[in-house]
Amino acid sequence: MADLSFIPDLPSGPLDCYRSTASFDWKQLKLSLEGDLDLLKLKYKIWKTLEKDLLFAPPSVTPSVEEQKRITQLQLKKINNYKFMTYEMFKSSYSKRTRAIMTINEAVQSVNPSVSVKMAIGIYLFSNALLSLGTERHYKFFEATIWNREILASFALTEVAHGSDARLMCTTASYDPKSREFVVHTPDFKAAKCWVGNLGRTCTHTLLFAQLITPDGTNHGLHGFVVPVRDPATLETYPGLVVGDMGEKIGVNGIDNGFIMFNQYRIPRENLLNRTADVTEDGVYESSFSEPSKMLGAALENLSAGRIGIMQESCHTISSAVAIAIRYAATRRQFGAKDDEIPLLEYELHQWRLFGYVSAAVVFRIYIEKFARIYLNIVEKSNAGLKVDNLSAAVSEIHAMVSCSKPLLTWTTLDAVQQCREACGGHGYLKCANLGDLRCNHEPTVTYEGDNNVLSQQAGNWLLRQYEQAASGVDSPLGTVTFLTRCQDILEDKFSCERTEQLKDVKFIKSTYQWLLCWLLKETHQQYESEVSKGQSKFEAKSKCQVYRWKTLSRVYAEYLAIIFCSESVGQEDTGLRPVLNKLLVMYGLWSLDQHLVELYQGGFASGDSLARLLRAAILEMCAQLKPEVVSVVDALAPTDFVLNSVLGKSDGNLYQNLQKALFGGPGAMERASWWREVVNSAPSKL
Amino acid sequence: MADLSFIPDLPSGPLDCYRSTASFDWKQLKLSLEGDLDLLKLKYKIWKTLEKDLLFAPPSVTPSVEEQKRITQLQLKKINNYKFMTYEMFKSSYSKRTRAIMTINEAVQSVNPSVSVKMAIGIYLFSNALLSLGTERHYKFFEATIWNREILASFALTEVAHGSDARLMCTTASYDPKSREFVVHTPDFKAAKCWVGNLGRTCTHTLLFAQLITPDGTNHGLHGFVVPVRDPATLETYPGLVVGDMGEKIGVNGIDNGFIMFNQYRIPRENLLNRTADVTEDGVYESSFSEPSKMLGAALENLSAGRIGIMQESCHTISSAVAIAIRYAATRRQFGAKDDEIPLLEYELHQWRLFGYVSAAVVFRIYIEKFARIYLNIVEKSNAGLKVDNLSAAVSEIHAMVSCSKPLLTWTTLDAVQQCREACGGHGYLKCANLGDLRCNHEPTVTYEGDNNVLSQQAGNWLLRQYEQAASGVDSPLGTVTFLTRCQDILEDKFSCERTEQLKDVKFIKSTYQWLLCWLLKETHQQYESEVSKGQSKFEAKSKCQVYRWKTLSRVYAEYLAIIFCSESVGQEDTGLRPVLNKLLVMYGLWSLDQHLVELYQGGFASGDSLARLLRAAILEMCAQLKPEVVSVVDALAPTDFVLNSVLGKSDGNLYQNLQKALFGGPGAMERASWWREVVNSAPSKL
Repeated sequence: MADLSFIPDLPSGPLDCYRSTASFDWKQLKLSLEGDLDLLKLKYKIWKTLEKDLLFAPPSVTPSVEEQKRITQLQLKKINNYKFMTYEMFKSSYSKRTRAIMTINEAVQSVNPSVSVKMAIGIYLFSNALLSLGTERHYKFFEATIWNREILASFALTEVAHGSDARLMCTTASYDPKSREFVVHTPDFKAAKCWVGNLGRTCTHTLLFAQLITPDGTNHGLHGFVVPVRDPATLETYPGLVVGDMGEKIGVNGIDNGFIMFNQYRIPRENLLNRTADVTEDGVYESSFSEPSKMLGAALENLSAGRIGIMQESCHTISSAVAIAIRYAATRRQFGAKDDEIPLLEYELHQWRLFGYVSAAVVFRIYIEKFARIYLNIVEKSNAGLKVDNLSAAVSEIHAMVSCSKPLLTWTTLDAVQQCREACGGHGYLKCANLGDLRCNHEPTVTYEGDNNVLSQQAGNWLLRQYEQAASGVDSPLGTVTFLTRCQDILEDKFSCERTEQLKDVKFIKSTYQWLLCWLLKETHQQYESEVSKGQSKFEAKSKCQVYRWKTLSRVYAEYLAIIFCSESVGQEDTGLRPVLNKLLVMYGLWSLDQHLVELYQGGFASGDSLARLLRAAILEMCAQLKPEVVSVVDALAPTDFVLNSVLGKSDGNLYQNLQKALFGGPGAMERASWWREVVNSAPSKL
Repeated sequence: MADLSFIPDLPSGPLDCYRSTASFDWKQLKLSLEGDLDLLKLKYKIWKTLEKDLLFAPPSVTPSVEEQKRITQLQLKKINNYKFMTYEMFKSSYSKRTRAIMTINEAVQSVNPSVSVKMAIGIYLFSNALLSLGTERHYKFFEATIWNREILASFALTEVAHGSDARLMCTTASYDPKSREFVVHTPDFKAAKCWVGNLGRTCTHTLLFAQLITPDGTNHGLHGFVVPVRDPATLETYPGLVVGDMGEKIGVNGIDNGFIMFNQYRIPRENLLNRTADVTEDGVYESSFSEPSKMLGAALENLSAGRIGIMQESCHTISSAVAIAIRYAATRRQFGAKDDEIPLLEYELHQWRLFGYVSAAVVFRIYIEKFARIYLNIVEKSNAGLKVDNLSAAVSEIHAMVSCSKPLLTWTTLDAVQQCREACGGHGYLKCANLGDLRCNHEPTVTYEGDNNVLSQQAGNWLLRQYEQAASGVDSPLGTVTFLTRCQDILEDKFSCERTEQLKDVKFIKSTYQWLLCWLLKETHQQYESEVSKGQSKFEAKSKCQVYRWKTLSRVYAEYLAIIFCSESVGQEDTGLRPVLNKLLVMYGLWSLDQHLVELYQGGFASGDSLARLLRAAILEMCAQLKPEVVSVVDALAPTDFVLNSVLGKSDGNLYQNLQKALFGGPGAMERASWWREVVNSAPSKL
């Protein structure tokens, strides 16, 4: 057993009664969810360090957006100084290094999401992009970013009128052989790069994606360029640029998202990231890829590390939200038979509202932890020039997995935070409950790094390709859809259970999901073919297959992935954790299947009353089985009280004492308003 | 035809192409949705007045919470001065007066929800409560509130540890016959009254609900008392009170929600609102009701006007949200076959994501308008001492209707605003899109004035009573559940349609809803009886029937109500609006039924593929039919551009020009950060 004494014990109090009924040790579960002792230690080290640093003390009132930007930038500088990333970590293997970066990102994100986004974009994603898209001549930028922290970067891709569709971006970088420079230009405001994190106030350089035009007038498609934006010494923007801040947003106001327009702005030829293609001094384009569209794919592929990071952050957000709501539910009493008030946690409706999300938090965490490990190993091998079987097929499969999982995790988390807020009633609406900030800061994840609805479609593309070729075998090196070769047989399956016990079994859940995937693929494929046969273009045909089909397919595939990856991990657990993990996995599986009952009936997997009745009864039974575990489960999911920063979710469970302290101690809470003279009636009558 | 020239015409521009395809005149639809020409004029008058008043100019950056409170209070004072409520309105009939108040509330709410809440609570609900709970001796308070605006009131009901369960509130008002005073006391912080709007900084009086204790020690249950809190001349709180502001919230930060603890605080005997019960000078309790619980019901019934107001505000919020998203969808182009980008509105998936909410906005508006009229007529008759058939049965039915409809409308609106934000992509995340503020300000409506989950249960109670007595007739003066007497026959119905046309019919939708209600009642009743027969208490049995049953039942009933009320109104339309209204109603009905397919399959109404296939095909057909109408529909739903206050939703449709203006004109958007010296590296190397 690992020594987990670095994790502080939880204070004894009103939550003890629910903690004492758990079947497992919460610190062991915490370690299992983290997946690595050293990384867990690193996370606690970061949290403890930031807790002691006054700069990171949570403000009791939301500062102005400008002040949030200032504090966030100061925090970023401070984190640079802490050097949580040691030299050893940096020099270790790619996968070890990246996992350390991911852990640092997650730990910082949970304290202030704005600062982690700024750090991720401005330092890690940029330096990674230099390595993968650039060549030795860009090493100076790399060094200045990662070592000296003189560069803070940004990514300029999205344009005002073009978000998801990168092909039609209008910013150009035309090569001028006379001066050996690229001339970057923005034709109009619609082509202004926007939403660029770090650009509004702080970044010194931006990684610009622009259409590369050679002197012969040929457009070679989007390419990446390192473009200096501000003087690092003065933070003045350079002439030839119109740079502005996007202004106030719904959340993450510590990030200075910006827009930029280029007015015939010149950069050296060498600033083109030229790993995959280059322009000679004379202006001749030389590429190692034949098709520009493929090149674009290679350039953008880089962003998928960002999507994995978003999923890890989502795991953290959903964990925090359920921790707050469950601890509140365990200490808040209301109604009851006669005057015996009972904790909200005792209500079946309340369990049902929350336990699905608790189980999702655990299942997602295990899934992403395992998935990230596989992903990083493949990238590492490939970087090292080692042979990876079916590398390009694996890359496609991973892309499909990321494309459906990022939507699933971010949407589920958004729903979870909302449900948790509602489950905490009015008190959940207090800023100091922290559910509002969790939500508003999480909100953009469903849109950025690929809008969820658009991204989902990409997973569907891959799945349909696999379905169409299933007879002759699938290209699924990770094995997620090998079952498709048995598609015909699977579709013969019928629901035949008679007792809830038969449903509360991962095997049942997996096989039902396989049926669902086969049926949805069959339906989507048929619809698509039927649209094409009506003379619709591929684009139109695809558009007409989204609702109820493509979209659902992508969602179901993501849920299935979470279940099979988590199931494999649970199977490998040899500690006392297996029973509780299995309960959580079954809960998640059944709760997710509940959303797809219509398809199970429509497709003839079941008919009549038994499937819905048994499935829903099983879910409620799982709620009852999870009740004695759930407080300890959220203890394992929750960060420290400092990080959780919620008056309703403190680990001591002293709900009303904490609430009184927060309300009485609010800034000026009991003072007369300073503006009272402006609002009283001048001559009120005596009442 | 009414002269609608007071409604400004819409500017010509990019939206023209979609406006020209509508089958109707948008101003006529606007009038129809408002339901009354004079009220529509009043609304525009208010909007135009506030647009000209600099105090109401929307800030470009969210002010501090304290500043929001100050501005809101100043706005409230200004609105008092405008006297939108004329003397004629005030002297007209109860129902006319109340509808005028409702219109003023809605018009003000759409400009600043905080100020309308402060006004509604502090002036209208309080003065109404004085009339219904008080007697002539309280007229001085009434006068000071409604005429002189010297009193600003609040409602102190919720306690820190007791929100939904009012029975167990702990604040006491003990009568002291020696001084002829009530001594109000708060035993501990858990009993502090909290979330009291206006109490934090501004109110002069509070309407306190406290347990009335007579000198013999008897607790007579909750009663209402008028309690002075602040000196109107100085806004100083009185000694004996601990009053504080609740601090920052997720939204509506212009409202100064407060908490209060009473330390043996004395108020005159006459401040008891004594319409239903009084305490004599000697301390003898005299009641016209026999049971304290009934009295509580009478006292709280007063709040249902508040719930109707919330539903009206929800109608406004959902209308604004869909107007923003639809106008954006009509002007934002993305993807397309080859390089021909098409508006988002052309995508079936995008239509499906939004059109259900557009139709909900219209159906809800018509439903609530009709319902409010019926409700007010009944109250008016009853107040006037006229005989109302089955008054107490009508009150019960209305209470059931409100209890399920407030959850339906507020939740649907919450979902709608979220979907609209996502449908506007990243730009929807800008504060100046206004979807974030719409959402955060709407958010508490699902919790206050009766938590949605708790409130829903009350509709279920009434429905089950009707079901149980259906054989001998139902108590449904409004006729919403008279069909239950045919319950057995209805449950024999089977789905037998073969073409989508058969489903796109209000008759089909209504009869399917009736089947659903009968089936859910049967299931819920059976489950309840089975729990009771196992020896569970009524309370426990009810708890075990919520998930999948009671909760669903209440939701389905609310949807059914919206459909039948709207259907009746549409049937009475003799203008050219009937076709579009019918499309919207059918869309809403089918889109809502889609959520209940599982129950339709489970209960045997249908089996196999046809129901789900036809229903979903019909929904997509309705999307296509609504596309040419939808921009004009949202023109009818939307308020003026000043009120909508969204850079993405302006009626001129000049999306990118408006966006450029907003971004370039943001406060300090292109300035160097004032804090740049704090964040630059002291000695950066030249790059």
